[in-house]
Amino acid sequence: MQQRAENTRQAVLLGAAISFEKFGYGTSSLSTILAHAGVTKGAMYFHFASKEELAHAVIEAQHQLAMNGVQAVTEQVPVALDALVFVSQEMARQLVEEPVARGGMRLTLEIGSIQGPVQRPYLDWIDSIRTLATRAAGEGDLADGIDVEALAKFVVGAFTGVQVLSEVLYGRVDLYERLAEMWALLLPAVAAPHAVERAIACAARAPRDWTVPRAGLDVNA
Amino acid sequence: MQQRAENTRQAVLLGAAISFEKFGYGTSSLSTILAHAGVTKGAMYFHFASKEELAHAVIEAQHQLAMNGVQAVTEQVPVALDALVFVSQEMARQLVEEPVARGGMRLTLEIGSIQGPVQRPYLDWIDSIRTLATRAAGEGDLADGIDVEALAKFVVGAFTGVQVLSEVLYGRVDLYERLAEMWALLLPAVAAPHAVERAIACAARAPRDWTVPRAGLDVNA
Repeated sequence: MQQRAENTRQAVLLGAAISFEKFGYGTSSLSTILAHAGVTKGAMYFHFASKEELAHAVIEAQHQLAMNGVQAVTEQVPVALDALVFVSQEMARQLVEEPVARGGMRLTLEIGSIQGPVQRPYLDWIDSIRTLATRAAGEGDLADGIDVEALAKFVVGAFTGVQVLSEVLYGRVDLYERLAEMWALLLPAVAAPHAVERAIACAARAPRDWTVPRAGLDVNA
Repeated sequence: MQQRAENTRQAVLLGAAISFEKFGYGTSSLSTILAHAGVTKGAMYFHFASKEELAHAVIEAQHQLAMNGVQAVTEQVPVALDALVFVSQEMARQLVEEPVARGGMRLTLEIGSIQGPVQRPYLDWIDSIRTLATRAAGEGDLADGIDVEALAKFVVGAFTGVQVLSEVLYGRVDLYERLAEMWALLLPAVAAPHAVERAIACAARAPRDWTVPRAGLDVNA
């Protein structure tokens, strides 16, 4: 019974994410969301009272997915600088493969115009990158004098814009390639000389789903 | 008479830009736009038939402003790499000071969800940066082996995201500072060694309005 309710909730969230991605917040209606969710109106209202509540639930679901990605990569990649690169690749994979990530990303950019800015996902994301960058500095993998705070903010900002541009111009089919280029341009300035090539090679690797743990996989193979 | 019509058209455009920035495309209505424009309904309909037409006019006005900025900087700054840095600073100034730039930026991100992506402003902006970067390479101011096409796309993408983050987190009060950090992180990798400090110094300078020509001003002073 509880499982069935959870399944319904997930179906509504997915329908809402697809609808918000397609139509934006302002133009999405509860009926377009219902049409994409494939549940009854009663089932939807059992879980969510309004479009606003749904929008915040999609943003929260995307945020949870992103934080799971950070945690999975951090647990599986011992070298912090490499983990930092793989985290951005996992964020890209989520945008390419997960409707909730795309819906949440659009909402985060858009709903702020109606209800004030949605800051927490960005702040938590910057925190995660700052933590990894601080570890990378401790491991001797950052160039001398790199401002870790500035780097964390810039990586999150640059990723956000690179994916916007990739979405607008090419429907995100070039996102992994643009991201690899971003790291190839940036790493020679921010990584310690011995770490540059290794980290660029991480960025050029084919994306994998980090949130699905694979026992025994050597990520540095 | 023609001047009066043009003034009315500008007032409607400005009202629309402010309304789109504040409420987004989906939630803006012709009546909120009218309230911000301070003109009669008849005057508005004389110039624009629909909200959609207004949105595209704001995007076009922002695009024109941006291209004027690129042209003004290019004419006033002889060194291409420095011009490239000053162009991004001028784009930031427009976002901070010009409602049309803010309204257009929000619409470009948002209206695509309703009517398909708005690509031309991004493509023209990438073109401008590619032209400057190609000139900078010819002037010996880029590092060896820099992919000019990748650089142009990355600079536009990174700027877009840095300004989104600055808007969401701090209402753009930190935009110039974030942009100076972006260049301080990126230039050591993409500029030729002799040009790094000079270009970083350009990014750290106080912003000025490049679209207002100042006779006899030495920009490298």
